[in-house]
Amino acid sequence: MNETLCLLNSHRSDRAFSDEPVSDEALDAIVEAARRAPTSSNAHHVSLVVVRDAPKRARIAELAGGQPWIAKAPVFIAVILDFYKTGVAVEATGEKLEVHETVEGLLAGVTDVGIALATLISAARSLGLGIVPIGGIRRSSQAMLNLLELPTRSFPVVGISIGHIVKAALQKPRMPMKAFRHDEHYHTEVLQDAIASYDATLLDYWKGIGRTDGKSWSKNTAEAYKQMCFRDVKPVIAKQGLTHDK
Amino acid sequence: MNETLCLLNSHRSDRAFSDEPVSDEALDAIVEAARRAPTSSNAHHVSLVVVRDAPKRARIAELAGGQPWIAKAPVFIAVILDFYKTGVAVEATGEKLEVHETVEGLLAGVTDVGIALATLISAARSLGLGIVPIGGIRRSSQAMLNLLELPTRSFPVVGISIGHIVKAALQKPRMPMKAFRHDEHYHTEVLQDAIASYDATLLDYWKGIGRTDGKSWSKNTAEAYKQMCFRDVKPVIAKQGLTHDK
Repeated sequence: MNETLCLLNSHRSDRAFSDEPVSDEALDAIVEAARRAPTSSNAHHVSLVVVRDAPKRARIAELAGGQPWIAKAPVFIAVILDFYKTGVAVEATGEKLEVHETVEGLLAGVTDVGIALATLISAARSLGLGIVPIGGIRRSSQAMLNLLELPTRSFPVVGISIGHIVKAALQKPRMPMKAFRHDEHYHTEVLQDAIASYDATLLDYWKGIGRTDGKSWSKNTAEAYKQMCFRDVKPVIAKQGLTHDK
Repeated sequence: MNETLCLLNSHRSDRAFSDEPVSDEALDAIVEAARRAPTSSNAHHVSLVVVRDAPKRARIAELAGGQPWIAKAPVFIAVILDFYKTGVAVEATGEKLEVHETVEGLLAGVTDVGIALATLISAARSLGLGIVPIGGIRRSSQAMLNLLELPTRSFPVVGISIGHIVKAALQKPRMPMKAFRHDEHYHTEVLQDAIASYDATLLDYWKGIGRTDGKSWSKNTAEAYKQMCFRDVKPVIAKQGLTHDK
């Protein structure tokens, strides 16, 4: 197995960050890798906001629902869905921008946000750094976009904390392959067994790490969805002009 | 620079595929890497459909607007936004699924689709294979989801062609760093110059590869957005139950 496959297969979120700073060289290399990643139609509707300022990171830690590792890790990067940038370009050609009003635009742009995030993850981990992806910035998306001074037609979709780690986290078990990979067409008939098996695996995992309140994957997911239903996303994204009504 | 950073920095889409098959071992390793990738709240709302059947790939090549490399490359993988799978799990706990009706769910799920796609790209390229990401499957999303026999609450967001290549493609120049990386907050004032510079860079690139019809990035993007405004995405995704009206 090559170095990159080893890295991808060992993916985990690390939250035990040390105080050691991330060097400018490392940060530059991580961001450069993300800049080189593909975007749909080469349209570049993604931008990054790199936050190293400690009070600002402390504020993001609060906004994300109380995630102390955001304040602790020396680097936070917000990955922005950015139709402002493409709007500046497209409108200068005399054309009207419409993509930000479409569901298609949302799918294309947010897929590219995910690509950028995964690239930041791989680049940082290849340098021996720990990472945590942060979806919780959508919990208070209006406050986040004010803090990052984001223009209209842009939205803070996700973030990532990056730093040196004092203790590597365990890898969480994943969904059985048969409920992830479908050959030739989707096979609904495999799901019930696969989910039952993953429910048991995750209960064993919690037990193994001494979490007595650990729940099955099904119950975990039901709960996560309740907690993650950030109600201000829809009005705030629309207020940003990303109306997705076409 | 380590092997992974080299790989990420050399990203390009390769369309000149040979007839050489992708081995089962390579395909398994690529899919396994994606299975290990993070998902929001560990909710696993992504599934893959691996298509090797040649007539089916030929059909996808048509549906994607005429992309012959999909028929030529021996492997096509569709990356599915999948709230069907999580629905099976969540509803078995007695809870009601709601995430698929929210914009928040769409952002979380599609970000994870992008993460899975980027992981497939890195894993395949680390094995020396060529890849092309395919957003064009959204052009005929109802026909795509029929072909892949996708259940309700799921949607084919993006795909990827994977194969051995006969000739490596050139790397396309990217947006200048100052219009991609913003430090501490978004800097709208840098965009006009950066875009003018990228417009010129891309015109030079087209000239360099002998494409006399090459356009600036601004004009390219204006045109791409017109062509990519796939109008059936909104009704089809809603028909799938992914109503994003909350």
